[in-house]
Amino acid sequence: MARFFVEQLPAEGGSCTLTGENADHAKVLRLKPGETVTLCDGRGTDCPCTVEGGLTLRAGASLPCPGEPSARVALYLAFPKADKAEHVIQKATELGATEIVLFPSRYCVSRPDDKSLAKKLDRWQKIARSAAEQSRRGVIPAVRAADSYAAAIEEAANADVPVLFYENEARVTLREALSETNAEASVARPRTSNACPYIQITLMTGAEGGFSEEEIAQAKAAGMKICTLGPRILRCETAPLAGLTAVMYALGEI
Amino acid sequence: MARFFVEQLPAEGGSCTLTGENADHAKVLRLKPGETVTLCDGRGTDCPCTVEGGLTLRAGASLPCPGEPSARVALYLAFPKADKAEHVIQKATELGATEIVLFPSRYCVSRPDDKSLAKKLDRWQKIARSAAEQSRRGVIPAVRAADSYAAAIEEAANADVPVLFYENEARVTLREALSETNAEASVARPRTSNACPYIQITLMTGAEGGFSEEEIAQAKAAGMKICTLGPRILRCETAPLAGLTAVMYALGEI
Repeated sequence: MARFFVEQLPAEGGSCTLTGENADHAKVLRLKPGETVTLCDGRGTDCPCTVEGGLTLRAGASLPCPGEPSARVALYLAFPKADKAEHVIQKATELGATEIVLFPSRYCVSRPDDKSLAKKLDRWQKIARSAAEQSRRGVIPAVRAADSYAAAIEEAANADVPVLFYENEARVTLREALSETNAEASVARPRTSNACPYIQITLMTGAEGGFSEEEIAQAKAAGMKICTLGPRILRCETAPLAGLTAVMYALGEI
Repeated sequence: MARFFVEQLPAEGGSCTLTGENADHAKVLRLKPGETVTLCDGRGTDCPCTVEGGLTLRAGASLPCPGEPSARVALYLAFPKADKAEHVIQKATELGATEIVLFPSRYCVSRPDDKSLAKKLDRWQKIARSAAEQSRRGVIPAVRAADSYAAAIEEAANADVPVLFYENEARVTLREALSETNAEASVARPRTSNACPYIQITLMTGAEGGFSEEEIAQAKAAGMKICTLGPRILRCETAPLAGLTAVMYALGEI
């Protein structure tokens, strides 16, 4: 079923018309009168609509989007090389991330200047939007950059479960980090409404060169839980998606 | 630490010389006398060695490779378009797959002929080898093709936990499939040796067009457990890696 993100949802029984990129997309899909499509406000609420003809829709009753996970997971990625960020943003959106924050770190090879970063962020946000439509998400993950490593860990450490994956950590597992904060217990919680309080989880991963020991000490001091992703060494574009998938499985979302 | 796959491991105290691609790789790394490297037989056993000089190594005692998971997970992928297979093979190797089998299915867009398939398999096997070295695996996943969908499901259904992920299945979860066969209990099992019996898990995923209803009925009849990967629709290159990661988390491997 076709899915369109709109600024505001129509009231039940009201009509609305697709515009801009949504109209272009709808023309490609050749919507037929009587067909059902879904409008979504990008904040977790869906509105099923019936095509009346052309680009005009008649709205049904809104409901919480079933594609939204029961936790808010933000990925914090050190700037990777080449087009790896695009790959991670697309897949992380499919897998249920709420926010994707890129940050500089000591061993980052890629250090975009302000002008190229603004362009990249614009492109990355479009990738997230398109992946959210395709995967039937109810929220388009916000993609943004942190000014510094210090700023990134300060923010990330505020979550209920703030995790940093480090290849030299062999002992502490993600399972332990989640159980400490009882995040896994939320598996038993029925998904009733998008209004119930969300657990906030942050997952932080390094660039190709990993983290320096000083950076790990700094993250620990800020309150990040330093965890392993297992004995296999994952590439910098694999690690965030593996961490995110594992969290989604732990939460009963996969 | 550098890692090389060899046909046969030297006996403890014996010496050996790196040859072929391993020699080329070692020259790039500029190994120094006294440095430690690891030889691996690709069947789960590691042998730490000391560089004596040039390409000559002195062997230490062999041991089970710590990078091998406690279950054998085979991925069965319907042939995807373009270079997606390369991507999945590289990441699946990092994440711990033991075997990757590609198969044709009704809605596959990509249908390589015998000649191009032989070339592709050769290339895919090299990608798996290189990813196994980088990620510190003890086994190079075998990459091969099944002749038909029927042949693929017949093989896949033989596993202890044979799972097929289907986007129209909303109810049965991977967690249920794993708990039915008590696979999750293996979390508690200490990793003592590579000789203990492995749980065999197969994870089957479709191509861009998904599976037909007839194919799902055929898989069910063969004994495959039809499962959901959650309410978000994953791309055909994301689904196998999400399934594999979730299994590895369930088994305590992540």
